[in-house]
Amino acid sequence: MNIVLFDNDRGAQCMPFTDARARHLLEVLRCRPGMQFRAGVVNGASGVGTVVAVERDRMRVSLCWNAEPVAAPDITLIVGLPRPPSARKILYQGAAIGCRAMHFVHTGLSDPNYARSKLWRDDEWRRHLLDGVQQSAATTLPEVTCGTALRGALACVAAGAMVVALDPETGMRRLGTVAVRPPLVLAVGPERGWSEVDRVLLERHRFTLCTLGTRILRVETACVAAMAIVQARLGAM
Amino acid sequence: MNIVLFDNDRGAQCMPFTDARARHLLEVLRCRPGMQFRAGVVNGASGVGTVVAVERDRMRVSLCWNAEPVAAPDITLIVGLPRPPSARKILYQGAAIGCRAMHFVHTGLSDPNYARSKLWRDDEWRRHLLDGVQQSAATTLPEVTCGTALRGALACVAAGAMVVALDPETGMRRLGTVAVRPPLVLAVGPERGWSEVDRVLLERHRFTLCTLGTRILRVETACVAAMAIVQARLGAM
Repeated sequence: MNIVLFDNDRGAQCMPFTDARARHLLEVLRCRPGMQFRAGVVNGASGVGTVVAVERDRMRVSLCWNAEPVAAPDITLIVGLPRPPSARKILYQGAAIGCRAMHFVHTGLSDPNYARSKLWRDDEWRRHLLDGVQQSAATTLPEVTCGTALRGALACVAAGAMVVALDPETGMRRLGTVAVRPPLVLAVGPERGWSEVDRVLLERHRFTLCTLGTRILRVETACVAAMAIVQARLGAM
Repeated sequence: MNIVLFDNDRGAQCMPFTDARARHLLEVLRCRPGMQFRAGVVNGASGVGTVVAVERDRMRVSLCWNAEPVAAPDITLIVGLPRPPSARKILYQGAAIGCRAMHFVHTGLSDPNYARSKLWRDDEWRRHLLDGVQQSAATTLPEVTCGTALRGALACVAAGAMVVALDPETGMRRLGTVAVRPPLVLAVGPERGWSEVDRVLLERHRFTLCTLGTRILRVETACVAAMAIVQARLGAM
């Protein structure tokens, strides 16, 4: 946790010790009254927090917001709905590396049951996003959806966006050789790959089908590798 | 598991059902006698396996080695010894993405106790490598060492190798802007970063200090991102 994020920009806040942020400040950073830490507002400014008081069961902090929010790279990730353990890693790492949105979509070969995981039912998915953003010291959370069909997600792609899909089976070019520009949409298939119907949809939306070389990577590794490659090509990494 | 690896190139082999490979063939690929699967020899050729018989407690297979081994990208990763959970991810993902060697080294700010984890004491580290290589459908395992000092690892770098280190604190260039060529050595600090002594060593060995942008990533995310970026620059991804 390289920044502590708050839900609002009030200048004085109070956190019970049951709050993971208070425990992090006390146990990891060993903050005592007067000590400062990096703070931010979810989807807002960042600044400096100061521990005001450590009471019996809670901590009081004061906050000074002095830096504008930094926009995340204009990359949207569309991923064929993966197993929940993979989805957790993608949520965390996608939020840490930085992107505007992540859409976990139903595809021809994804298992629709994965959308009924407790990951998606309660707020767990948002916790992984927060963890990733707090690790990276940013403040902006990607927009996340789960359970749209690939067709619907593609219909929402902004006109003029550059669109690239990973396809180890039919991709003709390596991702690192494609000239990219923002806004960029990056589509990654589920564990079992794209179906023929998915490929027709991707081609209809003019996606360039690419590979990450000859090796077959897990969905979560492919997402991180692909996001890093395109961010490097955009000059951000 | 996109390839089943064997320790030797015998043309007929037998696996008890306690062997994870036999279980994968039976339970995931649902192989029955006569069915074929992708097979390889650790650090050797690849080819085709055929299930010959499924007996009460074991499986017999025949193997035909018809493809030469494919060399891994000539990248050596030097990582400041991370917590064992991070090291497991780096072993798995580094082997999947592909590299020649991974050296987990003691640095100024790494915790030497991590080298005493059961991960390194018994064969567990090798299992993560095998899992990663079997996922990627390659056959070559990276060479791995744990517990050398950074100084010793740097002294072993081949003359003429290109040397790059990630340093979010003092790096002046983004990794994606550095022209790379093999053989390449990529050094990544431990969770707490490089010490001043580490930096002097890296500079003495002419490492270019780079960043992955402004975000602070976990060691394992930084390793995957950096390996993907350099492989893309080398034309392999």
